[in-house]
Amino acid sequence: MAETTRLSGQPDPGRRDRIIDAALTVIAAQGVAGTSHRKVAAAAGVPLGSMTYYFSGMDELLREAFGRFAERGADRFDARMARARTPSDALDVVADSIAGNADSGSDDLVLTHELYTLAARNPDFQQITESWMARTRAAFERHFDPLTSRLLDALMEGLGIHQALDRDPAGVAHIIEGIRRITRP
Amino acid sequence: MAETTRLSGQPDPGRRDRIIDAALTVIAAQGVAGTSHRKVAAAAGVPLGSMTYYFSGMDELLREAFGRFAERGADRFDARMARARTPSDALDVVADSIAGNADSGSDDLVLTHELYTLAARNPDFQQITESWMARTRAAFERHFDPLTSRLLDALMEGLGIHQALDRDPAGVAHIIEGIRRITRP
Repeated sequence: MAETTRLSGQPDPGRRDRIIDAALTVIAAQGVAGTSHRKVAAAAGVPLGSMTYYFSGMDELLREAFGRFAERGADRFDARMARARTPSDALDVVADSIAGNADSGSDDLVLTHELYTLAARNPDFQQITESWMARTRAAFERHFDPLTSRLLDALMEGLGIHQALDRDPAGVAHIIEGIRRITRP
Repeated sequence: MAETTRLSGQPDPGRRDRIIDAALTVIAAQGVAGTSHRKVAAAAGVPLGSMTYYFSGMDELLREAFGRFAERGADRFDARMARARTPSDALDVVADSIAGNADSGSDDLVLTHELYTLAARNPDFQQITESWMARTRAAFERHFDPLTSRLLDALMEGLGIHQALDRDPAGVAHIIEGIRRITRP
């Protein structure tokens, strides 16, 4: 995509990228519901006309924005899993990542739920959630068998969400016990 | 609330209730983003003026609607857990409930994600998610210890979401294996 933009002869090849990042900022603050071309253009510091130049409409912008969000999340998780040298290191990464979710109201949490809401309704966005899940499972498979990886991913998802949506969240000891049970041979 | 309505002297004591149900129908179809007083009044078959008579604003209507949605979900799950006579019956209920999520695009799935999106941003809605989780855990505690109940709830959440957002969802055998691992003593 960056290549296409560059070849188009527009003076500012980074502009499309900046618009996508700005869209994520606006969505995190105001929700998909509160996002408009006008607000995203203002946040990106580009003229309103750029929006229709680079994107066929709000749907394309949302797909690009959430695609980037999911890819960054997957990259980050994969890098952490790659650094883990043993399965036990890997499980520490998972426990940290779940416990970190307790910080509700974070942009990542809000954006994840906004994405899931879109995907629950529109199969176009399921391509994004599906490939995010596939990458997370592949990252787990650096250390665990495929079935355990799938179950760990689901447990991490559920505990992470409950951590964020519960004002009486599970303690770290509970999280570790859950991970231990799921990974027991 | 029903009592207050009745005492107010309005001619139709069921009207407020009907508006709340209509709000859920409109939200399922068009999202919180696409929901307006006008659309809900039309769906409920009440004059637009009823909306401001019964609700201080969209926020109150959303809280009432999602509060009712969560309560119904909790009632349904608790009834199923109450009917299970053994832990093994109870686990069948859980597996069915997860596998049933694969039917993505269902109103329940869409409404759940809409609620989580609101709760991720606004603590008022966390009271709803929190009490829903507390009731689900209590239903599990008819058959399991509190820690196992919490972990089962999280696994059911994560597997259920992944089931719905993945076009290559886990099979029932994987779901049962996950439940088996979480509940092993």
